Amino acid sequence: MTAAERIRVTYLLTCAAGEEPEAKARDIAREQTVELPEGGAPAAVERQIVGTVETVEPIGERWRVSISYDPVLVDGDLPQLLNLLFGNISLKAGIEVADLALPPAILEHFGGPRFGIAGVRAVSGVTERPLVCTAVKPVGLSAQDLAELCYRFARAGIDIVKDDHSVADQRPAPFTERVARCQDAVARANRDTGGRALYFPNVTGPLATLNERIDVAVRAGCRGAMVSPLALGLDAVRLVAEHGLVVFSHPTLTGVFFHEGHGVAPHILLGTLFRLAGSDGVIYTNAGGRFPFPVEHCEAINRRLREPLGQLRPAFPVPGGGVDAARVTQWVDRYGMDTVFLVGSSLYAQPDPEAAARRLVGAVKRHCHE
Amino acid sequence: MTAAERIRVTYLLTCAAGEEPEAKARDIAREQTVELPEGGAPAAVERQIVGTVETVEPIGERWRVSISYDPVLVDGDLPQLLNLLFGNISLKAGIEVADLALPPAILEHFGGPRFGIAGVRAVSGVTERPLVCTAVKPVGLSAQDLAELCYRFARAGIDIVKDDHSVADQRPAPFTERVARCQDAVARANRDTGGRALYFPNVTGPLATLNERIDVAVRAGCRGAMVSPLALGLDAVRLVAEHGLVVFSHPTLTGVFFHEGHGVAPHILLGTLFRLAGSDGVIYTNAGGRFPFPVEHCEAINRRLREPLGQLRPAFPVPGGGVDAARVTQWVDRYGMDTVFLVGSSLYAQPDPEAAARRLVGAVKRHCHE
Repeated sequence: MTAAERIRVTYLLTCAAGEEPEAKARDIAREQTVELPEGGAPAAVERQIVGTVETVEPIGERWRVSISYDPVLVDGDLPQLLNLLFGNISLKAGIEVADLALPPAILEHFGGPRFGIAGVRAVSGVTERPLVCTAVKPVGLSAQDLAELCYRFARAGIDIVKDDHSVADQRPAPFTERVARCQDAVARANRDTGGRALYFPNVTGPLATLNERIDVAVRAGCRGAMVSPLALGLDAVRLVAEHGLVVFSHPTLTGVFFHEGHGVAPHILLGTLFRLAGSDGVIYTNAGGRFPFPVEHCEAINRRLREPLGQLRPAFPVPGGGVDAARVTQWVDRYGMDTVFLVGSSLYAQPDPEAAARRLVGAVKRHCHE
Repeated sequence: MTAAERIRVTYLLTCAAGEEPEAKARDIAREQTVELPEGGAPAAVERQIVGTVETVEPIGERWRVSISYDPVLVDGDLPQLLNLLFGNISLKAGIEVADLALPPAILEHFGGPRFGIAGVRAVSGVTERPLVCTAVKPVGLSAQDLAELCYRFARAGIDIVKDDHSVADQRPAPFTERVARCQDAVARANRDTGGRALYFPNVTGPLATLNERIDVAVRAGCRGAMVSPLALGLDAVRLVAEHGLVVFSHPTLTGVFFHEGHGVAPHILLGTLFRLAGSDGVIYTNAGGRFPFPVEHCEAINRRLREPLGQLRPAFPVPGGGVDAARVTQWVDRYGMDTVFLVGSSLYAQPDPEAAARRLVGAVKRHCHE
């Protein structure tokens, strides 16, 4: 097996006093596979299954370590990939997954986005500019009120109207009623304007009824859905994608992985893994908004979502979490055309959110000479 | 609605320079619900849906804050409970979920363990002492070799033989073949010894085929299974439980939540939430083993798994992760009878793991005067 045929993980290690980087690397290579001390597995398993420490090099006060693994450990099993990457070692200290290279065999198993950037553009009819997305909120409104918001935002020219991620199947707006009303409202706005706005319901909820919720969305005429991979399970993204829906993934709970020195780097989790699972768009908390998320993280996520990755389609970065409508054109310049800008609370803060949405879409169009 | 009817979350806040604890608490109460600035939601939603900051009090250099939420936000939706507890705020800083009180209405929705401590004792026939569990490993062995290990451990008197959590559906030991062979091996050992050893296969794997794997386990005659909730999704525990299997949950990936000052405390995640989802046994990395996990965490998890919690059955703590066979009786004294001791690598380190397992079980029985 050549190096390119193996799974290669780059870890940044912080060594405590007395901890040797080489020994720590070997410990990871065993903990993530055989979970037995050195020499504890039969010789054939020691050779094939235990991770191979490829390189150990100092980088500032940390150590950059590359460990490669036989892809037979994972094949098409996404939970097992998460487990291999950071499962048990999440319970140790000073280990950060900084890079991940997957061999073609693994990439083919997953397949990634069904639509990708080009597919979402085809569905939405927006070819020459970034897309504009907003969230209907807050949780607690009736289905009728949420649908009215959908109608107004779609009429204002928003490309994608999605549920706030806290809007689930609560009694004030039961899922089935909400999806039917919101999708109808967006369709009505499209008839009124000649537009092609889309409504993506949040299908996150009890696992036992996930397929039912997806079916409700498909039957209502929705072309896409939103899911919270870490609340529901990352592999749930694949289930939604397999039903032919565009999938936008939400970053709720992802922050637990983003600790300095221990965790999984944002561009690996939100960039590579969310794309691998099949997300056509990946929402993240943009720099300069409500969340303390450095712009370098955002740009690294953008790169991972769009870069060549086997035969996998590129996915849309969807910066959100407090993006100021007034500054969106600056972000267009920085992040580029292949971006979906999610602007929520900044519109709600205006006296007339529909008018604010119309100004936002107009500004983006003018900025892009559309 | 009385206070006891609301969801009550205790957060420990670390305030950065210039951060006011009251303002930080109010921000959490909104971020986790309406995601709109103060006054941004309609009055009825502001009253009902926004979290209520109940108390803010200094505790050392941190602040203990209690926020209560209307249970309508969650009802029976476990992903939404995770989202409410720590979803978006995982992406902020200095927030630790330290306690969680759930009202009867929420507890009834979930139901918790189907078997619980008494049920697992009934299935295993072990009434008067702690149970002893081991793992078959390493990944990379054939199904036949894994089954042979199962046979030997069951013959030695181990009560529960489970798959190592990295043993999934890999080509060296495909799931269906492995489960059939391992279950047969344990049944054969039971016939030879008159024992009642159990085999719990790891059913973690692709979500789309989870029901198939559960069915394979049930048809093979397994009485329980192991699942990795954070790799697969916490709600998957409920799916396994609904098929009538005893569920043991594995702590892989849980370490991402356990950061000093930011995260979800181990006794809440592994104690309360894993039990709520339906785990009959919760594996954690014991103090003094391969993982740096303080004994205070272990004891807090034990308490949460066993304490009264509405009508929910108590669940077994399953300390593992490098428990030394030679010290198990000391842990029996510390943790008590209602514990399942998971001893894996310490047995494999012996020249004859079967003999080591027999000595371990004998030591536990003698210690408990059985």
